[in-house]
Amino acid sequence: MAQKPSIPKGTRDFSPAEVAKRNFIFGKIQEQFKIFGFQPIETPSFENSDTLMGKYGEEGDRLIFKILNSGDFLRKADAKAYEEKDSLKITSSISEKALRYDLTVPFARYVVQHQNETEFPFKRYQIQPVWRADRPQKGRFREFYQCDADVVGSDSLWQEVEFVQLYDAVFTALKLDGVTIKINNRKILSGFAEVIGEQDKIIDFTVALDKLDKIGEEGVKKEMLEKGISEEAIEKIKPIFNLQGSFMEKIKSLKQILQNSETGQKGIQELEFIQNVIAEMPLQTAKLDLDVTLARGLNYYTGAIFEVSAPENIKMGSIGGGGRYDDLTGIFGLKNMSGVGISFGLDRIFLVLEELKLFPTTVTENTKVLFINFGEKEALYALKAIQKLRGNKITAELYPESAKMKKQMNHANKREIPFVVLAGEEEIKQQQFTLKNMKSGEQLQVSSNELLQNLS
Amino acid sequence: MAQKPSIPKGTRDFSPAEVAKRNFIFGKIQEQFKIFGFQPIETPSFENSDTLMGKYGEEGDRLIFKILNSGDFLRKADAKAYEEKDSLKITSSISEKALRYDLTVPFARYVVQHQNETEFPFKRYQIQPVWRADRPQKGRFREFYQCDADVVGSDSLWQEVEFVQLYDAVFTALKLDGVTIKINNRKILSGFAEVIGEQDKIIDFTVALDKLDKIGEEGVKKEMLEKGISEEAIEKIKPIFNLQGSFMEKIKSLKQILQNSETGQKGIQELEFIQNVIAEMPLQTAKLDLDVTLARGLNYYTGAIFEVSAPENIKMGSIGGGGRYDDLTGIFGLKNMSGVGISFGLDRIFLVLEELKLFPTTVTENTKVLFINFGEKEALYALKAIQKLRGNKITAELYPESAKMKKQMNHANKREIPFVVLAGEEEIKQQQFTLKNMKSGEQLQVSSNELLQNLS
Repeated sequence: MAQKPSIPKGTRDFSPAEVAKRNFIFGKIQEQFKIFGFQPIETPSFENSDTLMGKYGEEGDRLIFKILNSGDFLRKADAKAYEEKDSLKITSSISEKALRYDLTVPFARYVVQHQNETEFPFKRYQIQPVWRADRPQKGRFREFYQCDADVVGSDSLWQEVEFVQLYDAVFTALKLDGVTIKINNRKILSGFAEVIGEQDKIIDFTVALDKLDKIGEEGVKKEMLEKGISEEAIEKIKPIFNLQGSFMEKIKSLKQILQNSETGQKGIQELEFIQNVIAEMPLQTAKLDLDVTLARGLNYYTGAIFEVSAPENIKMGSIGGGGRYDDLTGIFGLKNMSGVGISFGLDRIFLVLEELKLFPTTVTENTKVLFINFGEKEALYALKAIQKLRGNKITAELYPESAKMKKQMNHANKREIPFVVLAGEEEIKQQQFTLKNMKSGEQLQVSSNELLQNLS
Repeated sequence: MAQKPSIPKGTRDFSPAEVAKRNFIFGKIQEQFKIFGFQPIETPSFENSDTLMGKYGEEGDRLIFKILNSGDFLRKADAKAYEEKDSLKITSSISEKALRYDLTVPFARYVVQHQNETEFPFKRYQIQPVWRADRPQKGRFREFYQCDADVVGSDSLWQEVEFVQLYDAVFTALKLDGVTIKINNRKILSGFAEVIGEQDKIIDFTVALDKLDKIGEEGVKKEMLEKGISEEAIEKIKPIFNLQGSFMEKIKSLKQILQNSETGQKGIQELEFIQNVIAEMPLQTAKLDLDVTLARGLNYYTGAIFEVSAPENIKMGSIGGGGRYDDLTGIFGLKNMSGVGISFGLDRIFLVLEELKLFPTTVTENTKVLFINFGEKEALYALKAIQKLRGNKITAELYPESAKMKKQMNHANKREIPFVVLAGEEEIKQQQFTLKNMKSGEQLQVSSNELLQNLS
């Protein structure tokens, strides 16, 4: 019986036009990755479960897609869990592999596994899909691409500078003017917690602070109070709710606020270094801004934290992010391998470019010329010309059947093929071709060489 | 505790050099796909299980990787299967999704699902990974890429002609001379079975015939006898074990052998058409040959059957294959949608190019110039020059730390970076750069513009 075809929720088919547009973005990102000296690696779609489990918190573990063992998997199932019908407990005994959840943990695993063949500092990029068993919603998918660039093996701040420049270079190449690269530093957040004497509440504190944009100063204060942060502590830190002015003006305020925190001062110095260099060699189209509310990846970032937001007139979450992590590879037994990396949000960048109509029209162009099929002899004549065009890298096609003229012309129109060639008995006799411009309707009689010239 | 990192058996990490070489092959294939008018689509990595199950035979079903349902999956498990601990029977109740096994069934599903937005004939290509829970062995992996081009919506033989030309174009572009495109036709195999009066044994017959290369005429006869094909029948068909000569000479013999089979004659006509066109427009580097022992994909191919073998001096299985199928989309409820397609075996092509040293040395080139880091001031001076180079699409890097000169030069050597720039206090004073060719050892004093010229 015929099935009504569908795909799993949260996944997508991509049509030729969509693939072309996505490849346009991938291409621009990849080109800049290369120009900046990053090298590509690829890792398997699934990893051993113990490589992934426990790396993303309890919620993350739940969202990892597990692959069922082959064969008689129940025979090896954990007996107690089976008896108790405990889905959570039985999983590791019937599933040894899982789809990757991000590119960062597989990269850490790669670095440790291949450390002897790898020259450090190692600048790698990776553009591959990841999978998450998240509840699908607008703009959130169960399968999506990540585009990551990381450097491991050096804690030099020049790399943070390069990542700011890389973001700028990519968005400039995409002609997406006016993105804001927001930067913060984990050490500044630690400094805040230190200053208010609530170091154990740093997570609650920063999670609340992160919402300043959405719920405002009063909302943030309320949430902090609810989390047990004292009114006195909040009072001490109050100026951070209203940091104003340029990057350097904010730095100046922070120096005051964090004067008693050594860690905080270190964070300020790092940001200052980055800003000073960028001031010397201005960005092309992006803006660098200091945002102390930025608190992404707090579990693993130890220095710089990046987030990129779309131009102000576009409503969209962040289109990129990243940061410095000091011990990514420690979980796999390799210590002292500091790294820093950034990521591009392909799906959101796609939506932004679509909204701003920034995809060049050439992106979705495909076949340039369709040869009408008038029968066996004419088709052979056409195919010889097609072979010559293809040899010159011109996309050319023969309509496969000698169908009615109207049907063939309709095919060219529906596919937006700009030129059609007609070559019937008369043309063959004269060794000519009739080239028709589908837009203007103009028709030319041309030789084989002229055909090539006209279509080049 | 630190884990010793590893990856699942049958999967691979790809290093930068490997990714570069693979992308070289993908690039050449993709370029020709486009030139021939094929358009890219992409489908999700996992499909609903019922889209895949039952499409590849019992063995195929077993080799499909199943994804465990999220949450408390045991609660919804088939009660009877659970009680009986029946792994096979329980699977569909605890796993709704599965990783794709090939690109053909997802393509058929795509065509049916999107038939209203699709203009036919539809020429699509697809380059994506597939997964099979096969026993891993040399050259056989559990995750590997398929590169497919198919046309659906027309039964014109011009498409078979184009696929022969497409194979030729790709292998010519890869500079892999001397591949043989072997062609057969399912109707000829049916004709054989008809002639010997053993139509119900066509599978056994062709499976045995397919081994002619390996076990010789006597071996094939022995296997046929064992499968219950009579000596008399085998005697009738004997000439096919020794088909000799050119394509057309073989055709001539076949006309004789299959004179009483209408289906067989139809198959011969189809092959003759293809060969006649190819004779009119000779292939560039490949050879087209008729091989009646070719029996791949017998379950679904209905017309032409293709297989490509590496140049004769290379021991390698087929590096490509395909064929005509008349009812691919029928399983999803869309009748009368004839299709034909071919596939390229990326992993084997990789091994062949490697063995014949056909990868251009430029393929693995990465960073062109490394700037030595002499300290903060010098690094800033360097980074300004780097920015200019990068703006001109030259891959340039700054060593991130002012480490010892020797260490930095070693880094350039290990990464095979061909140029190094030294710019210390003296150079800055003169607004110059010292450009060192790492191969010849030659050093030049150049200005910023000369640096760009030298590296362009």
